[in-house]
Amino acid sequence: MTMQRALVLEKQHQLALREIDLPDAVGPGMVKIKLHTVGVCGSDVHYYTHGRIGPFVVEAPMVLGHEAAGTIVEMGEGVDSLAIGDRVCMEPGVPDPNSRASRLGLYNVDPAVRFWATPPIHGVLTPFVVHPANFTFKLPDNVSFAEGAMVEPFAVGMQAAAKARITPGDTAIVMGAGPIGTMVALAALAGGCARVIVSDLAQPKLDIAAQYQGIIPVNIRDTDLKAEIDALTEGWGADVVFECSGSPRAWDGIVDVLRPGGTVVAVGLPVEPVPLDIASLSVKEARIESVFRYAHQYDRAIALMGSGKVDLKPLISETFPFEQSIEAFDRAVEARPSDVKLQIVMDA
Amino acid sequence: MTMQRALVLEKQHQLALREIDLPDAVGPGMVKIKLHTVGVCGSDVHYYTHGRIGPFVVEAPMVLGHEAAGTIVEMGEGVDSLAIGDRVCMEPGVPDPNSRASRLGLYNVDPAVRFWATPPIHGVLTPFVVHPANFTFKLPDNVSFAEGAMVEPFAVGMQAAAKARITPGDTAIVMGAGPIGTMVALAALAGGCARVIVSDLAQPKLDIAAQYQGIIPVNIRDTDLKAEIDALTEGWGADVVFECSGSPRAWDGIVDVLRPGGTVVAVGLPVEPVPLDIASLSVKEARIESVFRYAHQYDRAIALMGSGKVDLKPLISETFPFEQSIEAFDRAVEARPSDVKLQIVMDA
Amino acid sequence: MTMQRALVLEKQHQLALREIDLPDAVGPGMVKIKLHTVGVCGSDVHYYTHGRIGPFVVEAPMVLGHEAAGTIVEMGEGVDSLAIGDRVCMEPGVPDPNSRASRLGLYNVDPAVRFWATPPIHGVLTPFVVHPANFTFKLPDNVSFAEGAMVEPFAVGMQAAAKARITPGDTAIVMGAGPIGTMVALAALAGGCARVIVSDLAQPKLDIAAQYQGIIPVNIRDTDLKAEIDALTEGWGADVVFECSGSPRAWDGIVDVLRPGGTVVAVGLPVEPVPLDIASLSVKEARIESVFRYAHQYDRAIALMGSGKVDLKPLISETFPFEQSIEAFDRAVEARPSDVKLQIVMDA
Amino acid sequence: MTMQRALVLEKQHQLALREIDLPDAVGPGMVKIKLHTVGVCGSDVHYYTHGRIGPFVVEAPMVLGHEAAGTIVEMGEGVDSLAIGDRVCMEPGVPDPNSRASRLGLYNVDPAVRFWATPPIHGVLTPFVVHPANFTFKLPDNVSFAEGAMVEPFAVGMQAAAKARITPGDTAIVMGAGPIGTMVALAALAGGCARVIVSDLAQPKLDIAAQYQGIIPVNIRDTDLKAEIDALTEGWGADVVFECSGSPRAWDGIVDVLRPGGTVVAVGLPVEPVPLDIASLSVKEARIESVFRYAHQYDRAIALMGSGKVDLKPLISETFPFEQSIEAFDRAVEARPSDVKLQIVMDA
Repeated sequence: MTMQRALVLEKQHQLALREIDLPDAVGPGMVKIKLHTVGVCGSDVHYYTHGRIGPFVVEAPMVLGHEAAGTIVEMGEGVDSLAIGDRVCMEPGVPDPNSRASRLGLYNVDPAVRFWATPPIHGVLTPFVVHPANFTFKLPDNVSFAEGAMVEPFAVGMQAAAKARITPGDTAIVMGAGPIGTMVALAALAGGCARVIVSDLAQPKLDIAAQYQGIIPVNIRDTDLKAEIDALTEGWGADVVFECSGSPRAWDGIVDVLRPGGTVVAVGLPVEPVPLDIASLSVKEARIESVFRYAHQYDRAIALMGSGKVDLKPLISETFPFEQSIEAFDRAVEARPSDVKLQIVMDA
Repeated sequence: MTMQRALVLEKQHQLALREIDLPDAVGPGMVKIKLHTVGVCGSDVHYYTHGRIGPFVVEAPMVLGHEAAGTIVEMGEGVDSLAIGDRVCMEPGVPDPNSRASRLGLYNVDPAVRFWATPPIHGVLTPFVVHPANFTFKLPDNVSFAEGAMVEPFAVGMQAAAKARITPGDTAIVMGAGPIGTMVALAALAGGCARVIVSDLAQPKLDIAAQYQGIIPVNIRDTDLKAEIDALTEGWGADVVFECSGSPRAWDGIVDVLRPGGTVVAVGLPVEPVPLDIASLSVKEARIESVFRYAHQYDRAIALMGSGKVDLKPLISETFPFEQSIEAFDRAVEARPSDVKLQIVMDA
Repeated sequence: MTMQRALVLEKQHQLALREIDLPDAVGPGMVKIKLHTVGVCGSDVHYYTHGRIGPFVVEAPMVLGHEAAGTIVEMGEGVDSLAIGDRVCMEPGVPDPNSRASRLGLYNVDPAVRFWATPPIHGVLTPFVVHPANFTFKLPDNVSFAEGAMVEPFAVGMQAAAKARITPGDTAIVMGAGPIGTMVALAALAGGCARVIVSDLAQPKLDIAAQYQGIIPVNIRDTDLKAEIDALTEGWGADVVFECSGSPRAWDGIVDVLRPGGTVVAVGLPVEPVPLDIASLSVKEARIESVFRYAHQYDRAIALMGSGKVDLKPLISETFPFEQSIEAFDRAVEARPSDVKLQIVMDA
Repeated sequence: MTMQRALVLEKQHQLALREIDLPDAVGPGMVKIKLHTVGVCGSDVHYYTHGRIGPFVVEAPMVLGHEAAGTIVEMGEGVDSLAIGDRVCMEPGVPDPNSRASRLGLYNVDPAVRFWATPPIHGVLTPFVVHPANFTFKLPDNVSFAEGAMVEPFAVGMQAAAKARITPGDTAIVMGAGPIGTMVALAALAGGCARVIVSDLAQPKLDIAAQYQGIIPVNIRDTDLKAEIDALTEGWGADVVFECSGSPRAWDGIVDVLRPGGTVVAVGLPVEPVPLDIASLSVKEARIESVFRYAHQYDRAIALMGSGKVDLKPLISETFPFEQSIEAFDRAVEARPSDVKLQIVMDA
């Protein structure tokens, strides 16, 4: 263990930039990373404002931050896939590789996963972190640290796109133009969709999404979503609807915009159960998929960014130096409608 | 058109055995079938007692009956897959083969489907019917007319089993031991499940299901379903849950009995929307499939019955002659707990 | 029937631009199309030079051409999805909608398919054609007739991409940079691949493919394909290999460039059986998919072209007026290495 | 390490029952098992007669045997899923849980797998073995040790059935009625097939397979396989063909017995590449799957045996005491046509 300066959530509503004791032994299969950029995620902010997310309660001081990129500075025994000096990003959740879920390839739903900045596991708004090499991914030369720190939220979009089992040329709807909805829309396009309608009530969010070719913004304050999808598909409906708003109302009539045999992917997490009309679901033999974080998406996300198919730079709204981390979080709490992603640079 | 004696639903609550004018022209691609056995289905009974099912309202006299087997007595032009004298059963829904859904192979969700005994289409509790040859299926010698008339409800179970994408050796739960739940359980076992827990509150229904090897009956009046599945799977959960009770309460906590990455197949149709907890669904990355009747199941169902893997005879509770059709329906209305399927024989 | 001027293959090696009697009755469900652009396909050229393709032998004069776009000039009864004046392209193969394969959604493998310019069915290098409305697809305003006539070969690429079941972010190899290989590469990229290595011996073909972002050209005359894919994937291998060269030698060692659990899609058709090493296939548990033309791809291909995700214009090498059709075919016979697609404009 | 008496393959053609030093430390996550029954597998026999299988060469004395069941006698730290006295069977291949293949759930194709009785890893024809708890599976009370030792070969059949992605009610062909072909046929039936044609030239093998309901034996010495499948499927063809003979000739025309859109699963391993006709494969858009051992099949296999759906007892041809192990192997070398599985009981 060693003392490091970190952004520590002391308890609900109370952040501090201070020294804290963190592990630094680089065991076999591990690497030590000097952090460069860490994104501010809605879940970090939620722990700050609410002190908990569902069953996860902040009961002791916890370092925040889990969307991270940096540089390898030390290698543990037996690591040969990486080298000192490699620019990397890290998957923040580490499962038990021997669990039943992990063995099936479903490591994201392994209950034993230890995930950065999810109580009681510390996050990485701190200069250094030790992490398993096989959850650490090399960045191509043309992918910056800032983009590297975007891989984590983009991986959520990738997971949703993978679960949708897109057939090339599909038409999708993404409900909700927040950061996750936008990530899902980009992943769906990169993942094979020809067109993605993104719907929201907030025009500034839609304007950001609309920068991307293939995205069709629909402000449902004044436009009827069903009429739009019908016009686009000659009345057939969307192949996939990604529900990313987390609003229970989004589920009301969700099957109406879907084609027969289509798929709903539940990404947004309403706090209450949503009403699901089995009869209307059945008449179209629709399918519902759900996602939990991601598995096997980091290398795929990086490949898409490295090949130029996906450009996440327009989604980085503002960058803060580490010493202004608390300001960054306070800005996130009062997010502007046009804010997508705020990032913190560790040694700016 | 020709006059035939038929079981006619005149309007809600009013049945008559009388002559009615029915089509009898055997056009190209069609066959004429002399009906032998017709099953009494819950939907037939529901039209009798309620006069409607959802948007389908009985507004003119309608012949009931859609679970049917018989003998070919006349062949239309261009039919070479069948012959006069063939013992057959018939798929009661005929789609538009040129619709977008049909072209994709999803003919069951083609809105243009014309389905026997669904207003305004007549059913087949009548001596003869004319039907497309390619929705008419030859019965093997070892499958009786009575079993042939069971293919229709069994096809519903087959559709559910197909949608579940069973991996050989799966463990499933079927919620609800009514006729459809039992059919689903048998299809799931024939379709690759090692074990199927069938749960219900009614012991006589469970006793019938429990006759079959591989079915584990659980009376949830006194037994905890989650404890049962945990004991059977070392705490892992069911690979598939088929919800066949149609009870909204069944959806409460349905994910608890499912394994991570498992599947819920919605078969029962609750009249109201059910509450769906997206958060618990997501934590397991569970999937929900729905079914609407069936497509491409008749030949498969018949193959399973012909090879001896599926024996539906124990589910035929009682048989009535055609002239006692109204008695059969009245018995169905006041169904005994041990009644699974009542059938009517046309020329007994 | 009516006399139309057409490009007629009289027999092997003998083409004529002459009048020929062709059907023109616009029956129910049919539309009449004034043709605008027709592409020259390798199969058209092969009938010209060889008089046959496998079991299909030109035994009577046959109009060539099946990659076509035009304008609707007459509507049959019951057609409501299209209108006179609509700019359209047409799927050249029309199945029996009631066949067993069609009913399953596999209409492309229905042996009863009638396909333009496949003996004895006439093609469409002629001013007008009558075609089923549901195999006729409206072009968006931003898709030209020339691009509309490219939908047919692109649909082959789409079918291959669909069969590959691409997971978003996959890395693929396309062996063979001919017209079909290039179409497959573009469909694979649009369909979710992050990167596609295209390999060939002919540098001019590779140069054309290399115009597209995401395509990595590899000239196997001087570069080792396995070394390239290993460098790109850290020794893991390609998720998908599309074999489009039709060369039996391509199959020798094809599994070596594949990742464990990867997929080979056989697109090119070697004239002789290829040697398949089951042991090496098994060690990786690899899968082989095959494609036959396409099914359900036209609307998807058009959506990708309309949304700007796929631009096929750079692949149109030269355009000929209808009266120079024979010159177009002779040019195709002696194709320049840089020729991808030659097209004929009907009323230029 | 401790000395144990074991069946040791000294080198090609030379077996000895003698003491050999074997590991016996029961580390964390491990269990120690007293072996009860060990089956004689074709691969064990092949090492005996040939000294190698492909790249795996016996270069030092190696204990044979990998199909095993026994009783837990000691538990390592951290094992809570098992208990001393549990009757178990063991998965003989242990992968690196952190490899890229394992993480994807494809642990069987992890090149780092250490597999019993595959050089240089010792097998288990020895009194005790130490093994990871999570590759050790508890047997239900109604599954004997002898059946437990059959789980390994049956798991190969299960893997083939899983790869086939059987739709309930499929009709399959298994080419080759040897032990693996029979296992595949039983797994295919248990896994959802209605009917399985098993074809072979050796009548005694077919007679054994024919004991099982749903298996249709076809002696291709005197019966035409294509005619049989056509009769069974009205000319449509088999949904799945499992090639288990390992004969290259089996691949000649293999697509002819398949339906359009059907699947070939390559199970048998011909020593030479087989000729694959891509054109005939493509005309049916057929798919080829391959298998390598198995993954995730032990619990499923045991569930099917425990529920009574699969009975492997009729396939145990003869049982030998451990002290007659060499006789058992010599009998296996000169296998009788009716021999399916020979087993050795360790402490009989």
